[in-house]
Amino acid sequence: MAAIGAMPEIGGFRQKSRRSFVTLILTVLTSSQSILIVWSKRAGKYEYSVTTANFLVEALKCALSLVALLRIWRKDGVTDDNRLSTTWDEVKVYPIPAALYLVKNLLQYYIFAYVDAPGYQILKNLNIISTGILYQIILKRKLTEIQWAAFILLCAGCTTAQLNPSSDHVLQAPLQGWVMAIVMALLSGFAGVYTEAIIKKRPSRNINVQNFWLYVFGMIFNAFAIMTQDFDAVMNDGFFHGYSLITVLMILNHALSGIAVSMVMKYADNIVKVYSTSVAMLLTAVVSVFLFGFHLSLAFFLGSTVVSVAIYLHSTSKARR
Amino acid sequence: MAAIGAMPEIGGFRQKSRRSFVTLILTVLTSSQSILIVWSKRAGKYEYSVTTANFLVEALKCALSLVALLRIWRKDGVTDDNRLSTTWDEVKVYPIPAALYLVKNLLQYYIFAYVDAPGYQILKNLNIISTGILYQIILKRKLTEIQWAAFILLCAGCTTAQLNPSSDHVLQAPLQGWVMAIVMALLSGFAGVYTEAIIKKRPSRNINVQNFWLYVFGMIFNAFAIMTQDFDAVMNDGFFHGYSLITVLMILNHALSGIAVSMVMKYADNIVKVYSTSVAMLLTAVVSVFLFGFHLSLAFFLGSTVVSVAIYLHSTSKARR
Repeated sequence: MAAIGAMPEIGGFRQKSRRSFVTLILTVLTSSQSILIVWSKRAGKYEYSVTTANFLVEALKCALSLVALLRIWRKDGVTDDNRLSTTWDEVKVYPIPAALYLVKNLLQYYIFAYVDAPGYQILKNLNIISTGILYQIILKRKLTEIQWAAFILLCAGCTTAQLNPSSDHVLQAPLQGWVMAIVMALLSGFAGVYTEAIIKKRPSRNINVQNFWLYVFGMIFNAFAIMTQDFDAVMNDGFFHGYSLITVLMILNHALSGIAVSMVMKYADNIVKVYSTSVAMLLTAVVSVFLFGFHLSLAFFLGSTVVSVAIYLHSTSKARR
Repeated sequence: MAAIGAMPEIGGFRQKSRRSFVTLILTVLTSSQSILIVWSKRAGKYEYSVTTANFLVEALKCALSLVALLRIWRKDGVTDDNRLSTTWDEVKVYPIPAALYLVKNLLQYYIFAYVDAPGYQILKNLNIISTGILYQIILKRKLTEIQWAAFILLCAGCTTAQLNPSSDHVLQAPLQGWVMAIVMALLSGFAGVYTEAIIKKRPSRNINVQNFWLYVFGMIFNAFAIMTQDFDAVMNDGFFHGYSLITVLMILNHALSGIAVSMVMKYADNIVKVYSTSVAMLLTAVVSVFLFGFHLSLAFFLGSTVVSVAIYLHSTSKARR
């Protein structure tokens, strides 16, 4: 919570260490999120409705942003940069990322007609490439050639680390499956890059205000999802039907990692976010060895090596700029 | 044969294009070699004794070097650099690579007690790393950090491309298997780097003379191998027992690629040789799709991508030197 409450001046070492801090937090939260998912799958099936959980995640993020803002107002007073009230001109673009994610999540239901679940995990790595392309086009910041090489390696390395005996099925997936996967990768990449553009447009604006408005639209879109998809279940069994301790922990974790993503967008960028979540994927696998007795495959070691070299190349190339 | 007969002055464009030419020849020969092996396996088992074939390869290389020298003597006359006679001081180091390969080949018989054949294919990629390390230590030429990153990627990429469902067995191989694989990688890396050191020691010396003496020792060591391993078979069934058209083609191909390796050592280096043979491995797989109806796995595509990025990084890093 310290990172949300604190609002020091941007610049130099302070900025760099905050950048590293939010990246680290995002990595840890993302990997513990995956571990919670494995844990919940082991404990039994998803009994709760996913849409209500998503709604609660957005509501919790909203509440956390408000708590952080209250502390800031008490300390610094209300200024132009941290006031909650907003203009139509500022807020009109905020629903766009939430709408993009909604479309992407709807598509997710249909892609499984063409691609199986392990194949979908493999295809999700296309997000890395689409984020890189849209980052260059929309944010107009250029990656060096070495950074592009590193990004391609990141994608190949992550996919290699996730290889399993049934992965080859994805090569036999029909064209529709590939097209949908590419569209989904573009939607999710576009949502990520667009969020960064929104947050970075006014650097002095308090991140908690920006988050508050982003999450308000997230709540609205998720309320819409509850009504269209789970209205009957919620009416008959109740909003919190099937919730367990793991569900609560997952909601908490999703909310905190959502905030961490926003922080990474504000103080770093989408490229850092992609590296961070990729490292989280590898971390998850290593931790799962100890927690669940999983075995690491040779493909995992090879993929991790390639990802490590990608991180090294990305950071060297940056230092030379 | 043109490259063997010609002996123009080294320098500038001529050197660069010769370097590219011998590298290309080596790549094509190495990949067609693997295709011949697959073909011979499909046609039936190895019926001939491998040691007699190896001896003939060395003898053929010797003969080809002599033919090239005869042409050069007729054109340029006999000079200090192209005379066949040699001194003890020049020739005393020539048996060392042949001896190292002999020890490595002997070890090869024992490693299968600890590692299965697909596992051995995987472990052979350690050669890439050992060649890089010994290249730096023995030839005292430094690879840049990016070139090292590229070399690690080359090793990871080649291994990924060769992954198959039983590859994970290699992780369960006993320590002895790993130690032997590392020793074999060091022996083969040392032999390669040492050959380059011998050939490059006197740049003006004609490569065909250097080859002739290298191959003479190769013949001697292989004659020794025939006596110790296949003496009875050769005595009872004859030297050429079990030879077929494929055997003859394989011997021809081995001889030509042996000469191409020497040329790459003279006009390029061991690093180029490793890249060339790695690309040959990938080429073989692609050609096998058309020739034998093999299927390419997702792992193959990922590995090829990583190898391509490695080649790109190696060449960019060179251009910047």
